[in-house]
Amino acid sequence: MRLTIAQLAKRLEAELVPILSGSAPDKTGSSQISAVGPVETADESEVTFVSDGKHKASLEVSRAGAVIVAERLDGLDKPQLIVKNVNAALIEALNIFAPKLQAVTAGIDPTAKLAQDVKIAEGVSVGAGVVIEDGVEIGQDSVIVSGCKIGENSKLGKNCRLDSNVVIYHNCRLGNNVVIQANSTIGSTGFGYSFIDGSHRLIPHNGGVVIEDFVEIGANCCIDRAKFGNTIIGAGTKIDNLVQIAHNVEIGKCCLIVAQAGISGSCKLGDGVVLGGQVGLKDNIEIGDGAMVGAQSGLSHSIAAGQQFMGSPAIEKRESFRIFGLMKRLPKMTKLLKQLIKRVEKLEAAEDDKE
Amino acid sequence: MRLTIAQLAKRLEAELVPILSGSAPDKTGSSQISAVGPVETADESEVTFVSDGKHKASLEVSRAGAVIVAERLDGLDKPQLIVKNVNAALIEALNIFAPKLQAVTAGIDPTAKLAQDVKIAEGVSVGAGVVIEDGVEIGQDSVIVSGCKIGENSKLGKNCRLDSNVVIYHNCRLGNNVVIQANSTIGSTGFGYSFIDGSHRLIPHNGGVVIEDFVEIGANCCIDRAKFGNTIIGAGTKIDNLVQIAHNVEIGKCCLIVAQAGISGSCKLGDGVVLGGQVGLKDNIEIGDGAMVGAQSGLSHSIAAGQQFMGSPAIEKRESFRIFGLMKRLPKMTKLLKQLIKRVEKLEAAEDDKE
Amino acid sequence: MRLTIAQLAKRLEAELVPILSGSAPDKTGSSQISAVGPVETADESEVTFVSDGKHKASLEVSRAGAVIVAERLDGLDKPQLIVKNVNAALIEALNIFAPKLQAVTAGIDPTAKLAQDVKIAEGVSVGAGVVIEDGVEIGQDSVIVSGCKIGENSKLGKNCRLDSNVVIYHNCRLGNNVVIQANSTIGSTGFGYSFIDGSHRLIPHNGGVVIEDFVEIGANCCIDRAKFGNTIIGAGTKIDNLVQIAHNVEIGKCCLIVAQAGISGSCKLGDGVVLGGQVGLKDNIEIGDGAMVGAQSGLSHSIAAGQQFMGSPAIEKRESFRIFGLMKRLPKMTKLLKQLIKRVEKLEAAEDDKE
Repeated sequence: MRLTIAQLAKRLEAELVPILSGSAPDKTGSSQISAVGPVETADESEVTFVSDGKHKASLEVSRAGAVIVAERLDGLDKPQLIVKNVNAALIEALNIFAPKLQAVTAGIDPTAKLAQDVKIAEGVSVGAGVVIEDGVEIGQDSVIVSGCKIGENSKLGKNCRLDSNVVIYHNCRLGNNVVIQANSTIGSTGFGYSFIDGSHRLIPHNGGVVIEDFVEIGANCCIDRAKFGNTIIGAGTKIDNLVQIAHNVEIGKCCLIVAQAGISGSCKLGDGVVLGGQVGLKDNIEIGDGAMVGAQSGLSHSIAAGQQFMGSPAIEKRESFRIFGLMKRLPKMTKLLKQLIKRVEKLEAAEDDKE
Repeated sequence: MRLTIAQLAKRLEAELVPILSGSAPDKTGSSQISAVGPVETADESEVTFVSDGKHKASLEVSRAGAVIVAERLDGLDKPQLIVKNVNAALIEALNIFAPKLQAVTAGIDPTAKLAQDVKIAEGVSVGAGVVIEDGVEIGQDSVIVSGCKIGENSKLGKNCRLDSNVVIYHNCRLGNNVVIQANSTIGSTGFGYSFIDGSHRLIPHNGGVVIEDFVEIGANCCIDRAKFGNTIIGAGTKIDNLVQIAHNVEIGKCCLIVAQAGISGSCKLGDGVVLGGQVGLKDNIEIGDGAMVGAQSGLSHSIAAGQQFMGSPAIEKRESFRIFGLMKRLPKMTKLLKQLIKRVEKLEAAEDDKE
Repeated sequence: MRLTIAQLAKRLEAELVPILSGSAPDKTGSSQISAVGPVETADESEVTFVSDGKHKASLEVSRAGAVIVAERLDGLDKPQLIVKNVNAALIEALNIFAPKLQAVTAGIDPTAKLAQDVKIAEGVSVGAGVVIEDGVEIGQDSVIVSGCKIGENSKLGKNCRLDSNVVIYHNCRLGNNVVIQANSTIGSTGFGYSFIDGSHRLIPHNGGVVIEDFVEIGANCCIDRAKFGNTIIGAGTKIDNLVQIAHNVEIGKCCLIVAQAGISGSCKLGDGVVLGGQVGLKDNIEIGDGAMVGAQSGLSHSIAAGQQFMGSPAIEKRESFRIFGLMKRLPKMTKLLKQLIKRVEKLEAAEDDKE
């Protein structure tokens, strides 16, 4: 895909500001753009973008053919595409210049194995080697890529996409526009055992998993089914790779769970919660709306809406910074304390002399 | 599945205590139960359970149709099923009310690819697209779900279950009643390299993996094969999702390894060891019988039987709590130290005046 | 495979030193060896090895039939194979005694599904159920084991091996001699969202993944594709199991990334970097050549070549040890401080009396 800068401006509903100085103002609208690139590496055939004023310096030395900005930058020797929301325009530009891939074709690959009692809506694509069990329903235009397995009675909404080798166990429900990347596992039995007569006996997991609309799940994730009721991932929540979500967890809407985080059984997360990478949550705790837990933190108690915690064990974020700063001063503190002891000894000796 | 409370009591070998007060004692035995639910959410069609006295208050407001308890609770307006072991009865009840799924049918799916020299016992089910290489043996009633791969010469005992897309490399041995959930990998080559002439050269892994009876392994786990001998998972040990077990690790019987834990090469765990979620063990250390390592801890040395360690680096648990408590008091300590320095300075000045 | 000690010495280009004392010197060269074993467990049919002097004591009680060493050990009652590089000889010996497996046969399994426009070089093996999309190229002698998926336009060099159920998305490029173990995912879309009008919108990932020659990747790993350009894994780098590598990360040559480590977006690692197990790197930081980050560390800023950091948050390694040592002394420090306060109070009281 190639567009002139003028065409691109139109597509992005941007105001085109031509080159304000320099040698080739007449070329501003007719130069060709074929990709999006970051400020540092973009060349003349690429459009770049700046979300804030910070990058202005690097922008001036950037070779990019044009730049998407929110406000006109004075004195910039480069065509500017002024947009309301740089991030939205960036997404649009990336979609325009996305590498061209073949369109997914609807239909069921002959090597897929579908049980008798399966409902596949119009426009659905089922790839090679996919296994779909009885009672499964798949909504319109969903794409089930090769090697996936969908267990008994699980239901998928419209426009979902399961990438290669995703496994959905029985009795799971996915809403519309759910994306699950390769090798992820949904609905596995949770880690619940009772120690009875000398051995760990598995507690049956009669519940399921509910994944609401517009949830996106990365690669190689695990979401366990519930013992009772459902493990729930709220609408619009996004989950990175290699994340563990245990049985009976309930996650609110529009949360972000970064890679390798682990959420223990029966935790409840509000809406808009952010968990950093490699975070671990103890079981049965609650995280209020909009709360954030910093990367690698281990949180062992509930936190309220909007709170920010970090560390392992996690404490309030500012306190955590303060304490960590003081920990680094421990060698100095130790030295001061030793000196002080000597000074007190000296004072005590002087006092003794007087008596 | 629906049972009257009386029928359920019989199935659980429970003593049925009818409603002790209230309006409908005559209905106690004939009410219908169709599921198990937690105290907080169970409704009249569900039986709930309490493992200890703690939940009595919530029990009184619970809408559950009946409750499984170990000892009769006085004054409770709800039918009670008195059992010897609540956990065992809970497992039984969950099994009774488990969602009805189709029975697995024995036989080999026509799309499975079995090598010539393969021994499949009676009652075994081999799913679609499964690949089984030469020398493999699978014991009676084992279930190999779709998409699995079993490498050359690996042996599975009776009544094992490999869920979808599990990969077992060559020369691995699984005992009886082993369960491995979807997308797990058993017998991959371990991370062992020698740096020779400017590059990392892989140390061949001639050993295998031995997984003993009644071991259960979660989804997306990795268990590496040994360089020499075997990586061993002892009987009855249970492993959660996304766990990493490196080459030549030996794990004892009835251990619990929680999600995302990682055990480095050649570690030896005794029986009944518990590793919390996201724990990391340094290579070549030993963990005594019944020892516990708290979630997210990083243990870099051996610990004896029964010890409990936590933190990163991990120290003895109580000491860890104490030190973490003092860390949180560092701001106060720093302040006290500063004040003290001033007070000593003042005393020193007074002393100087006298001289 | 069985070799006499004399034959093995020849294969390893080792100098054979017969038994220097003891009862059976005449058997030195003719005894049979059939495996490699560690000093502690090797029996008479096994050759063992010692990389340094440390193991001499255990060597004397070892039952091993022979030992590979770098320098002749005096007074050892065991045949010695003197080699220049013990590690290289060990690798060679392990290869000699590797369990015999069937040779991979070139050819395309009839159940594999190849698109029209695919270039498969000579000697390539494509296993059962593999799916290969249009534009894919696979170099000579590469092995694609069962259940793999290779997406549109991805290219693999010569002599690569993808183990079962590996998923390579579109537009990825693998060099020669790349090994990826089972259930790993390469080229998934990274975790990049913009919050626009009340929801997280995915930033399209137009880039790809480049994996250079001799890279080896463990099982169940995830390497995300780039937003722009490529996520790059440099030649000779080795990656353990369950590792997360985010979008636009660039890793240099001959790095070692231990299991469950996570590298956030756009990090740049130099050559020869070592990341311990469960390490987490903040996004957009740089790690200089040969730097090391200790297991479980969380690094939130760039570090220079050769630096060693550890802890979460990570600090310089020696400082980290020192501070951790002082943390363990916090109870004592607290006590000293309290005592000191009392002593100062006493001095102050004495001073007051004088005034």
